[in-house]
Amino acid sequence: MKIQLALDRFTIEQAIAITKRVYPYIDWIEVGTSLIKEFGMESVRALRKEFPGKTIVADIKTFDNAAYEFEMCYAAGADVATVMGASPVVTIETCMNVAVKHGKQVMIDLLNTSDDQLEKLTVYREAIFCAHVSKDQQEITGQKQGLAGIHLPGSRFRDTNRKVALAGGINAESLPSLAKVQPSVVIIGSAITKAQDPVLAARTIKALTTSAEGGTSV
Amino acid sequence: MKIQLALDRFTIEQAIAITKRVYPYIDWIEVGTSLIKEFGMESVRALRKEFPGKTIVADIKTFDNAAYEFEMCYAAGADVATVMGASPVVTIETCMNVAVKHGKQVMIDLLNTSDDQLEKLTVYREAIFCAHVSKDQQEITGQKQGLAGIHLPGSRFRDTNRKVALAGGINAESLPSLAKVQPSVVIIGSAITKAQDPVLAARTIKALTTSAEGGTSV
Repeated sequence: MKIQLALDRFTIEQAIAITKRVYPYIDWIEVGTSLIKEFGMESVRALRKEFPGKTIVADIKTFDNAAYEFEMCYAAGADVATVMGASPVVTIETCMNVAVKHGKQVMIDLLNTSDDQLEKLTVYREAIFCAHVSKDQQEITGQKQGLAGIHLPGSRFRDTNRKVALAGGINAESLPSLAKVQPSVVIIGSAITKAQDPVLAARTIKALTTSAEGGTSV
Repeated sequence: MKIQLALDRFTIEQAIAITKRVYPYIDWIEVGTSLIKEFGMESVRALRKEFPGKTIVADIKTFDNAAYEFEMCYAAGADVATVMGASPVVTIETCMNVAVKHGKQVMIDLLNTSDDQLEKLTVYREAIFCAHVSKDQQEITGQKQGLAGIHLPGSRFRDTNRKVALAGGINAESLPSLAKVQPSVVIIGSAITKAQDPVLAARTIKALTTSAEGGTSV
């Protein structure tokens, strides 16, 4: 289980500084959508350059213009880029093709993706499917990924045995129950970056993922 | 009927140069999603600064983090910003609230928005609803907004008498039939920016919109 550190609502310098502090306890670094939309591909290039040893996820949330946007992310140094599951299938298909061409990965963000659409997407065996409670859902309607119920797609999807990422307000309290669905990736933002002690928070979360996996280090 | 010039897959300098050439024939300037994701808010600031007399549309395609993204666009000088109709309703509601706070506008991009969702969105009387055939749909599946059929939402939406924008491969050939639905905005990209003579193309399109409106200038 990888820990993906989500960096949002920061300057590039702040994002680098917080990542340096928690570096030993995280696996993947997510250049958040807000960084990309505020600073462009420079945000991806800067994080790539600063952290050559980590997997870089560009949370670009593509909805159209897939080849152009994915080529741009991979050229800037991303290993993974995101596309919205709610976008036209032709767009997602194009992202998959660009990823194959470059030996890179695609994360499909399932925020507001219908079950019908999701069923069409399960053909993309190599994708990581991200079950996502959004910032706006968390901050305005109070939903979270976690204790009160795991916001996973339906059972027909789970039976396909695809790689899953979980995102949306995950913290040390909710992580143990979420770990039961054996996600490939847990995406953690403010539970680390806004913690009073980010290093302690990251170390605690890392220990929880390790113990959830039976004590083996990932 | 406003003509919105869509600027995509350009550097900021190229976007400014092409806009200068066709300036008298267009009404709104769209800073395309690709410019925002490649260069960040600097693209919006640069176009705003260069063209203080025009309406600037930031095609940011928000899907989450609505307040942050919309505040960012308006602070950078945008008059209109876009949100995806397929995103959670709470996100779209937040965009509407931020727009009201600043006396600005929201364009809801209806790409891949279900009829059920659209019905929920018709409460947003002040929004511009953009019926959109995407770049990927055009380039890969060959669809276009235009002659072969107008890709408008269903009749229940049309009866609501909301402001409509049309986008997706619109050109001088398809414009007259599209004008019949009396859109508030027609969004034109490559039919101007990739034309052999962009000035002639823009002038022709401007003349077509004027004649579709009975000869009155807009």
